[in-house]
Amino acid sequence: MASEQEHLHAGQSSATSSTDRLVISVDAMGGDRGPAAVVAGCALSVQSDPRVDIILHGDKAALEPLVAREPALAGRLSVVHADRAVTMDDKPSHVMRHGKDTSMWSAITALKSGEASAAVSCGNTGALMAVSMLQLRRMDGVNRPAIACLWPARGRHGFNTMLDVGADIKAEAVDLLAYAIMGVTYFRNGFGEPRPRVGLLNVGTEEHKGRAEIKAAHELIARHQETGRYEYVGFVEGSDIPSDRVDVIVTDGFTGNIALKTGEGTAKLVGDFLRESFKSGPLAMLGALLARGALKRLSTRIDPRRVNGGVFLGLNGTVVKSHGSADATGIAAAIGLAAKLAQSGYRGRMAERLVIAAQSSQAAEPNGDTA
Amino acid sequence: MASEQEHLHAGQSSATSSTDRLVISVDAMGGDRGPAAVVAGCALSVQSDPRVDIILHGDKAALEPLVAREPALAGRLSVVHADRAVTMDDKPSHVMRHGKDTSMWSAITALKSGEASAAVSCGNTGALMAVSMLQLRRMDGVNRPAIACLWPARGRHGFNTMLDVGADIKAEAVDLLAYAIMGVTYFRNGFGEPRPRVGLLNVGTEEHKGRAEIKAAHELIARHQETGRYEYVGFVEGSDIPSDRVDVIVTDGFTGNIALKTGEGTAKLVGDFLRESFKSGPLAMLGALLARGALKRLSTRIDPRRVNGGVFLGLNGTVVKSHGSADATGIAAAIGLAAKLAQSGYRGRMAERLVIAAQSSQAAEPNGDTA
Repeated sequence: MASEQEHLHAGQSSATSSTDRLVISVDAMGGDRGPAAVVAGCALSVQSDPRVDIILHGDKAALEPLVAREPALAGRLSVVHADRAVTMDDKPSHVMRHGKDTSMWSAITALKSGEASAAVSCGNTGALMAVSMLQLRRMDGVNRPAIACLWPARGRHGFNTMLDVGADIKAEAVDLLAYAIMGVTYFRNGFGEPRPRVGLLNVGTEEHKGRAEIKAAHELIARHQETGRYEYVGFVEGSDIPSDRVDVIVTDGFTGNIALKTGEGTAKLVGDFLRESFKSGPLAMLGALLARGALKRLSTRIDPRRVNGGVFLGLNGTVVKSHGSADATGIAAAIGLAAKLAQSGYRGRMAERLVIAAQSSQAAEPNGDTA
Repeated sequence: MASEQEHLHAGQSSATSSTDRLVISVDAMGGDRGPAAVVAGCALSVQSDPRVDIILHGDKAALEPLVAREPALAGRLSVVHADRAVTMDDKPSHVMRHGKDTSMWSAITALKSGEASAAVSCGNTGALMAVSMLQLRRMDGVNRPAIACLWPARGRHGFNTMLDVGADIKAEAVDLLAYAIMGVTYFRNGFGEPRPRVGLLNVGTEEHKGRAEIKAAHELIARHQETGRYEYVGFVEGSDIPSDRVDVIVTDGFTGNIALKTGEGTAKLVGDFLRESFKSGPLAMLGALLARGALKRLSTRIDPRRVNGGVFLGLNGTVVKSHGSADATGIAAAIGLAAKLAQSGYRGRMAERLVIAAQSSQAAEPNGDTA
């Protein structure tokens, strides 16, 4: 049981059980680079995975010429027209009330109806979460859905996962427990790790530090190691996020979003400083030329496009949020992640564990021990 | 007035006005590398700044042989004996009640009594803040003191400052306003920037996002630009921390500590990956050899030891917290920062502005406009 590999249980996913095809619903609009980058990303994905078909949502007049230019998309992509696009400035609440004619809404509708097994958008994160929650609804036992990201790390899988990185600005102890269970299921399916290690992000590793909800979550997460099939390593600090101490880092969406963007900003700063250093003189330039293979590998290893895609966890459907500034490579990575998740059937097991955890943590309130 | 350079007003600091000497009180104990690294750091500082003298606090029997080995310290350093050292595991509240015989307590006492003009410790941060608050007391208009750090950045000064990075896990809107005023005064004195730019850390740059206290702080900080002599650039995200958009980043101590450690962890990860890449083959190794001057400059540019020292702001005295793992170079940087601050007299101006801001933000509650 401890070595179960949930990604083998493809039959659990109702959306993929009736066919070998993996249909991904893609919002063509709302990214910083416009629909051309999205269409190019679709072309890369169908070439790299023969099972993937795409339903593309957006302005038909703009999309059809772009699609016609990509021979790889012939017979693999259909366009669904949407009059409008959600912009980065639209308020989520406004989109929920007045956004039915947007490409984002249409992309999630195709997932809800079962036409597609996963959805991808690089638009406004808040609006995408709001529209997804409204149409797909939360899984039982989930109060707050979360966005999980992958983070380049030292461990043997090369990545850790962190959640929530921006679905909600707040999380109570029971939400943090649900994040642990959801993050573990996601990591296990992504990397085949039977018993991922969970850490709770805090300002110090001593047990007396931190906020009240974090102390309460510390107890809850420790108590549910068997339910969630994880090993709880306790509190971790910001410096542990890319470490080999932990696989899944649990935090609220405010802190997680700040940490994610701080990490991205720092990696970019160091990369820019490195490039500037290599231009500082002829010897340095020659050195960079000789080491260009090694530098390319480094840049691939920390390239955010390789891990493009925040996954929405805790909804009745798989939604991947691509980075707003993603190019074709980044879009293709997000579609690839959506396809991988769609066929893994991870949501079935996750649902069972969330319900068990929610019941036992409610029964144990405020400080009992029924687990 | 807008171009005032407060670091010229050395006469405002009572602790330095009576003498040309800069006496720094240094806690020898409690760092991860033990007192030998601290003594070596003291030797580096007195060599690099002829005005600096040191009062060193700790176990006399352990310290005197170490001091005797450093000829540079002759006549420049005196040892004050303390029976005990604060450990990293000691609870701050325990140290406050039972820590009078520790080297940390003794180091702060020498500052309080006026024997020294600044204090440095690489011990337990929480205990150091607790002991400093108890002995030095908060400045008028300050509810929560803060720890400010410097962050390698793209701007012309090469550094941004962020606060709070760990004095308190919580901050209300008025605290965040005080952080803006304190951080600006610190940055202006450190870098001679007449009107630093302030940003408030948040999860998005749109005004409708974020927590209630952050929205309230957004209004308050915008309204006090003249009082504090800064330019408010609005919300900034984690990726802006090392950017040229901003000089002073304001946030609560929980978020700031996570961001600081995430940034440090990411920079270290990229550095380690870079070293591994350069060992991946003979061409890469030759390239690294040719580019070693450039790589050395890069490593200096992002070396945390260069900017070692979190400064405690909002107390009646200058306390610098060195990194627990600091070596001699790091300790010397922290002592150098303490000496620079001690002679700058920055606290006089800061005190005036904090009182004005506290009065007007109280008068303006909840939403008036008396500024």
